[in-house]
Amino acid sequence: MLTTYEEINSLVQSALIHAGASPSQAQATAQALVIAEASGLPSHGLSRVSMYVSHLKAGRVIGNAEPVIKNQRPSAVLIDAGNGFAFPACRMAVEQAIAKARQHGIAIAAVTNSHHFGMASYHLDPVADAGMVGIACGNSPAAMPAAGGKRAIFGTNPIAAIFPRTGHPPVSVDLSLSEVARGKLMVAADKGESIPLGWALDQDGNPTTDPKKGLTGSMLPVGGTKGAMLALVVELLVTTLTGAHFGAEADTFFKPEGNQPQLGQVFIVIDPKALGGDAVYTERIEALLTAMLSDEGVRLPGQRRIQLLAAAKQTGLNVPQKVLDTIRALC
Amino acid sequence: MLTTYEEINSLVQSALIHAGASPSQAQATAQALVIAEASGLPSHGLSRVSMYVSHLKAGRVIGNAEPVIKNQRPSAVLIDAGNGFAFPACRMAVEQAIAKARQHGIAIAAVTNSHHFGMASYHLDPVADAGMVGIACGNSPAAMPAAGGKRAIFGTNPIAAIFPRTGHPPVSVDLSLSEVARGKLMVAADKGESIPLGWALDQDGNPTTDPKKGLTGSMLPVGGTKGAMLALVVELLVTTLTGAHFGAEADTFFKPEGNQPQLGQVFIVIDPKALGGDAVYTERIEALLTAMLSDEGVRLPGQRRIQLLAAAKQTGLNVPQKVLDTIRALC
Repeated sequence: MLTTYEEINSLVQSALIHAGASPSQAQATAQALVIAEASGLPSHGLSRVSMYVSHLKAGRVIGNAEPVIKNQRPSAVLIDAGNGFAFPACRMAVEQAIAKARQHGIAIAAVTNSHHFGMASYHLDPVADAGMVGIACGNSPAAMPAAGGKRAIFGTNPIAAIFPRTGHPPVSVDLSLSEVARGKLMVAADKGESIPLGWALDQDGNPTTDPKKGLTGSMLPVGGTKGAMLALVVELLVTTLTGAHFGAEADTFFKPEGNQPQLGQVFIVIDPKALGGDAVYTERIEALLTAMLSDEGVRLPGQRRIQLLAAAKQTGLNVPQKVLDTIRALC
Repeated sequence: MLTTYEEINSLVQSALIHAGASPSQAQATAQALVIAEASGLPSHGLSRVSMYVSHLKAGRVIGNAEPVIKNQRPSAVLIDAGNGFAFPACRMAVEQAIAKARQHGIAIAAVTNSHHFGMASYHLDPVADAGMVGIACGNSPAAMPAAGGKRAIFGTNPIAAIFPRTGHPPVSVDLSLSEVARGKLMVAADKGESIPLGWALDQDGNPTTDPKKGLTGSMLPVGGTKGAMLALVVELLVTTLTGAHFGAEADTFFKPEGNQPQLGQVFIVIDPKALGGDAVYTERIEALLTAMLSDEGVRLPGQRRIQLLAAAKQTGLNVPQKVLDTIRALC
């Protein structure tokens, strides 16, 4: 059903506040979910509202948490999300990182005691608006084994990066480190189809072509060993620098019961002015993108998401009736 | 043939100086090549000496270049390698980044007008020695297409990361973003074997199982689209922030003739003290590694390299006679 951006935003806020979220937690969280939905990423959008509400009710998220600065240096800051939603803490982290990078050239803002941080690239939009380059990563409950392993230990650990352009939307990369999303296994299971080897392991750590066995087992990292090594790098960055839980210490998001996940996120912001300067930056990015686009079939990452979002802000979001009914029932 | 670390180091320096390298360029470059060889990475070790010499003779590398600081901020520095070898400039970059990160929490050191930077993880060893976390990346002459493309545009663009441990060697990750190394195609071509789909494209951009066609075509990124997106991120970081050439603007390393490659490298150094602190850092990394190693079959990245290097420093390097003869002939 078609709703305006403002309508659905206010509806999600109501649902979260009804379940115990403070207005500031609800505002930041609703905005992130609605933007993910409007960007064509429903898996990180409105389908999460009922999960978030169940976590509030079960005490897995503290609804009135306020993010606070735990430690800082001229170019670094650690923010404690206080086991609230990730979004207010991540917003504060990115604001801090932008201000510090503008002064010192680069900054890192890390978040601990955090929750699901949704679409990773969402957090970097203000970085591009400030004319800077951003990198984001975070962990999630264990879903993938280490290289050579049989048991899930790392999350799917998304990595995002943003590069602003003058007169064009930014280049916005956002990828998780699993070979495929769990959703693909769910679809195959529903259709009774098999999945290729390399997507998942069964409960005993053996390769499987049965999506149902994969869903009770673990996902495989993209590209095998290399994806597993990158997942390790993300897991180490967001836990060792912050004190956050690693994926295997956080209970699954997909059940209401469980612990406060206490996950970690890291944002790095770089000011091109501090290195080659803005003129060099613009010449280089445009030269590379032009060369890429001269090869038929190449598309720039993030452009579809950005276009869908712009359209949805103008003409509204087409939200499935079932999703809308679920959210309304929560208010 | 077994030679000592010092013997082979001095031999490589002689070969480079004979071809026009200054003592400082030769010293930094020889050390990097010998350490890569001793770490079990001959593809980035002594096999490169004759290539480096040919580049000196052809003017693709300026033998008496001195790296200089082009721009800086409290936490950022851009270093111009002056089209010398990468190693003196990268060493300076990493030293600067360590000092700046100690003061400010994080620092970025970027290098422009650079050459082949060898084994990426090599540059990060001093970061771990300083008790800090490091990330390195660089580009290389075009070898892989963008997602959806048919023509090589990105290098294989290695990413390395290092995480120090107390009382143990660091965790040292080092991977290139191609599905496999070119060397695997060469081996298959020699044996007359076919290669799996997904390793390479032929000259026309079509998937191929013929290693010879792959060698004249392009390599494929690891994990398909996701690897291509990560290669784009590396390519953008090391060019837009530095002014360096992108991979498709740099001539292949494997021929003496060609341009000065003017490649780029980026190093990011993070001080755990600025965020969660050293005690949290140590507790978290040891907890994660213990959990990983409790899954039989899991090995920590970098440990074999570190053990081989330690052994070679004690007992010497077993250098193939042919390689040794080639280097001796260059002196």
